[in-house]
Amino acid sequence: MPKINSYVDISTIDREAKKDFIDRHSPFISCESTAKAGQKFPVTVRVGNEYTHPDDPDHFIKSVSLYNGETLLAEANFTAGALGGQGQKGQAEVTFQIVPTGRKLRLSAIAYCTKHGLWEGTPVEVAVEE
Amino acid sequence: MPKINSYVDISTIDREAKKDFIDRHSPFISCESTAKAGQKFPVTVRVGNEYTHPDDPDHFIKSVSLYNGETLLAEANFTAGALGGQGQKGQAEVTFQIVPTGRKLRLSAIAYCTKHGLWEGTPVEVAVEE
Amino acid sequence: MPKINSYVDISTIDREAKKDFIDRHSPFISCESTAKAGQKFPVTVRVGNEYTHPDDPDHFIKSVSLYNGETLLAEANFTAGALGGQGQKGQAEVTFQIVPTGRKLRLSAIAYCTKHGLWEGTPVEVAVEE
Amino acid sequence: MPKINSYVDISTIDREAKKDFIDRHSPFISCESTAKAGQKFPVTVRVGNEYTHPDDPDHFIKSVSLYNGETLLAEANFTAGALGGQGQKGQAEVTFQIVPTGRKLRLSAIAYCTKHGLWEGTPVEVAVEE
Repeated sequence: MPKINSYVDISTIDREAKKDFIDRHSPFISCESTAKAGQKFPVTVRVGNEYTHPDDPDHFIKSVSLYNGETLLAEANFTAGALGGQGQKGQAEVTFQIVPTGRKLRLSAIAYCTKHGLWEGTPVEVAVEE
Repeated sequence: MPKINSYVDISTIDREAKKDFIDRHSPFISCESTAKAGQKFPVTVRVGNEYTHPDDPDHFIKSVSLYNGETLLAEANFTAGALGGQGQKGQAEVTFQIVPTGRKLRLSAIAYCTKHGLWEGTPVEVAVEE
Repeated sequence: MPKINSYVDISTIDREAKKDFIDRHSPFISCESTAKAGQKFPVTVRVGNEYTHPDDPDHFIKSVSLYNGETLLAEANFTAGALGGQGQKGQAEVTFQIVPTGRKLRLSAIAYCTKHGLWEGTPVEVAVEE
Repeated sequence: MPKINSYVDISTIDREAKKDFIDRHSPFISCESTAKAGQKFPVTVRVGNEYTHPDDPDHFIKSVSLYNGETLLAEANFTAGALGGQGQKGQAEVTFQIVPTGRKLRLSAIAYCTKHGLWEGTPVEVAVEE
């Protein structure tokens, strides 16, 4: 099994290079904290919060997967160059529209960097109202 | 080669069922008509404009691919159930953030329905300004 | 983070239903134990060893990913129906041809079931000879 | 819609560079000409028949999709480096095991090169026997 790196609150980390390394690889989920059952609900996943990641052919963010509990909801595959290309940096970002059912969403995201492997971010819970 | 169905302006079509069939399978690109080079530029692809598509396990919109000319920029894979599930209908939708380079984007999108195959929408040109 | 289920040697398990559940979801890697650097090397991943998995629209093996250490080598996406469809059972299987570099491959595989989530199998080491 | 390049029998082409260009990008399907209904049936797709393609980070074969008529059966995503990496050449290759139903398979494959876009090969028909 490949190692899955986990986001750690970078305010607890001293070394600048390490803050940058962790932040720029971690998928951050943003969405409202409550959703309406049966209505479109946008969920954005962005890789990197305060820092940016290279978009080089041999080093880029290749994919983001969004799960609800154990269930895959959607995934995005990115290509090198779509964030400016060689020498540029950016934050891979995608917004999915999902339609929640049930009482609660337990969202989590995984990103894959072609050099530094799999990264999981902080999960997010969303209350689903009738 | 699988057949690739092309969007046809549904206002030119008489039969309601055919309007619905074409519209609900076609990927519609929406974005600004001009972009700034080197800056994030959101591009939304939604499958279905006036009509909605089933989200049944054996019949759903599985993927959307976004191209710039011949180059794949990004693709999204959806799972059955993410738009409400069996018996529900909806419009698969994703927003990619890309960073344009060059003078022009020639965007096109392809959607795949698990029952009705590949569909291309109307291409969109975007002027890229310095 | 979605839970990742790990293969457990089913000979250590008493309950038949549990043996079946674990085996039919786990990706099994088969390949030679040594490879030649720079030459094609086939690696097969099959989901299920002694047991078979449903191929129903709402319950099938959707993907298999093959890693070398932390690096994704290749992935296969399957569609419901390709193993016989509703009411049938089978073992999702794919063979990738890779060309090894370095001294050693540390292969691992992850499978995704649309009902029972992510599963990792037993990793396999391959010596790479000049 | 991105252009989809079609394989042309390279024996009809004079210019060596063009033969190479067409051959190394085209997906070639190989399988038996008849299959047994309900039994595993291996289908290999290899990109390049007589020629090889670069495996550079900015220029490699990224994916192969296998269709039966209009229906996607399976797809493989490859990563740069899995065929030897920068400066090496090879043929992306994958073998899918499918279980045919119906009377006939009408197989076709599409490959995607990160520099030269989409390519379709010659379709293959397979008789399916009880």
